Amino acid sequence: MAEEKAETVKNKQVLLRDYLNGFPKESDMIISTCNIIRLKIPENSNGILLRNLYLSCDPTMHGLMRKPESPRRTSIPPCKPGSVSGVDFIAGMPGLTAYVGFYEVSNPKKGERVYVSAASGAVGQLVGQYAKSMGCYVVGSAGSKEKVDLLKNKFGFDDAFNYKEEHDLDAALKRYFPDGIDIYFENVGGRMLDAVLLNMRKHGRIAVCGMISQYNLEQPESVSNIAWHLYKRVRMEGFTVFEYLHLHSRFLDFVLPDIRKQKITYVEDIVEGLENGPAALIGLFNGRNVGKQLVAVAHE
Amino acid sequence: MAEEKAETVKNKQVLLRDYLNGFPKESDMIISTCNIIRLKIPENSNGILLRNLYLSCDPTMHGLMRKPESPRRTSIPPCKPGSVSGVDFIAGMPGLTAYVGFYEVSNPKKGERVYVSAASGAVGQLVGQYAKSMGCYVVGSAGSKEKVDLLKNKFGFDDAFNYKEEHDLDAALKRYFPDGIDIYFENVGGRMLDAVLLNMRKHGRIAVCGMISQYNLEQPESVSNIAWHLYKRVRMEGFTVFEYLHLHSRFLDFVLPDIRKQKITYVEDIVEGLENGPAALIGLFNGRNVGKQLVAVAHE
Repeated sequence: MAEEKAETVKNKQVLLRDYLNGFPKESDMIISTCNIIRLKIPENSNGILLRNLYLSCDPTMHGLMRKPESPRRTSIPPCKPGSVSGVDFIAGMPGLTAYVGFYEVSNPKKGERVYVSAASGAVGQLVGQYAKSMGCYVVGSAGSKEKVDLLKNKFGFDDAFNYKEEHDLDAALKRYFPDGIDIYFENVGGRMLDAVLLNMRKHGRIAVCGMISQYNLEQPESVSNIAWHLYKRVRMEGFTVFEYLHLHSRFLDFVLPDIRKQKITYVEDIVEGLENGPAALIGLFNGRNVGKQLVAVAHE
Repeated sequence: MAEEKAETVKNKQVLLRDYLNGFPKESDMIISTCNIIRLKIPENSNGILLRNLYLSCDPTMHGLMRKPESPRRTSIPPCKPGSVSGVDFIAGMPGLTAYVGFYEVSNPKKGERVYVSAASGAVGQLVGQYAKSMGCYVVGSAGSKEKVDLLKNKFGFDDAFNYKEEHDLDAALKRYFPDGIDIYFENVGGRMLDAVLLNMRKHGRIAVCGMISQYNLEQPESVSNIAWHLYKRVRMEGFTVFEYLHLHSRFLDFVLPDIRKQKITYVEDIVEGLENGPAALIGLFNGRNVGKQLVAVAHE
């Protein structure tokens, strides 16, 4: 019976041409339509067939595209050039990332001063809302007027600024945080981190979620103000969501009621069609996306 | 009666000439013998007169000599030029520093790989011994053959090296830690920290006790490998002993039995006479001292 129902379809794929060498480009990926698959559930199986409607693009995928021996890759297994990644990216991953980075790593307290870089991104927009919901003062930075408006008017940040318009980041931070920063949710790295260190308060915490400005540089930007760790007794900690997946159901219990009540909101940036996936992924490293980047691959 | 016993003496003092501007020099301090004091216990008092036998020289004192508004000063109140500091440096402070930095900040586990820089110093020599006593593998670095010999032959480090003889610190660390470093006890900063970051293991910890190579630089050395915090989920935390003084009696209960049984040993570098105090203090920043630097000011 099952045999009769089997359907043969072309399976469009995005394949990595070769491991990255510097900044990712669209030409590092190939759209392949050569693969033919049969949609068939094995006999006597309770399996079901799923159709993907959306795919996720996330900055951490840069690590999948690095040589296995590269120290810059993330903790998840790398792709093999020419074949499909075996890693499933959970579509709610940025929400869980924001949740563990803020509540588990940053040790926040009511009334603290929180700064989020890349704040309109999939993770940053949620960190800001979590921080507001527990009574923190929250400022975010982003790379366009549109994104800054979103932070202030949609996500409820206390304030926000366009880092591209600030030639002196230290001065900008002193304007928004005259009494210093308790928690820095780090998404970008480089000169932003250097300026933040000068503005940390005693016992401040830096949760290193990402350093998107640094991944693809041949020579990473250097940071000069590391000794502020000592002067201010700062704690800085890198984390990855893949080590907190056991908190996923607790996270859903926490966030879903607030999403239903529209107390937590979000912005998605959806491109249509798998063939636009490579450009969408690369756009993350240029700041082209506004909010969580998705690729719609089917509509039913 | 007390009045009759009062004795008038010259009180020799080391005074700060002016706040530091760059590297401290002997000429930043003045030896003054102008102050006359009367050794007298107030009537009807239970007070006693104390004679100082030893004074302590500690790297953290550089912070006392900075302008009050300098972010580089430590958490203790600064000196006033021309007057005596009101801060008592507890002579057991380096031992407590090593204790809290290792046990409270570094979260050590048996069998872990521990690296200590400036390891023959007052703090480093104890960190290495604490780490050995709980079954860690411990390597230290120092700046002379004499100090390296001390680390290996007196303090029981598993291995040690002279950082001045290594033009490639990354390669040196890979030689001593082929499987990476779990705990880095940071006393120096700068290019050493940069090399260590490349060699940290997953979930490694960096306890920032000091950055003696950096305090007196006009422009601190920059660090390029900060993103390793993310790649390896490293936690780096600055601390100061002055925030852990409540642990002092617990520390004494911990360390005194081992000192009596000679399971913990130490090396002191004692200069004679207060007039040699300024040179001894400045010697700390040149690595002249071998072990804990003291100044003997009296012998009974």
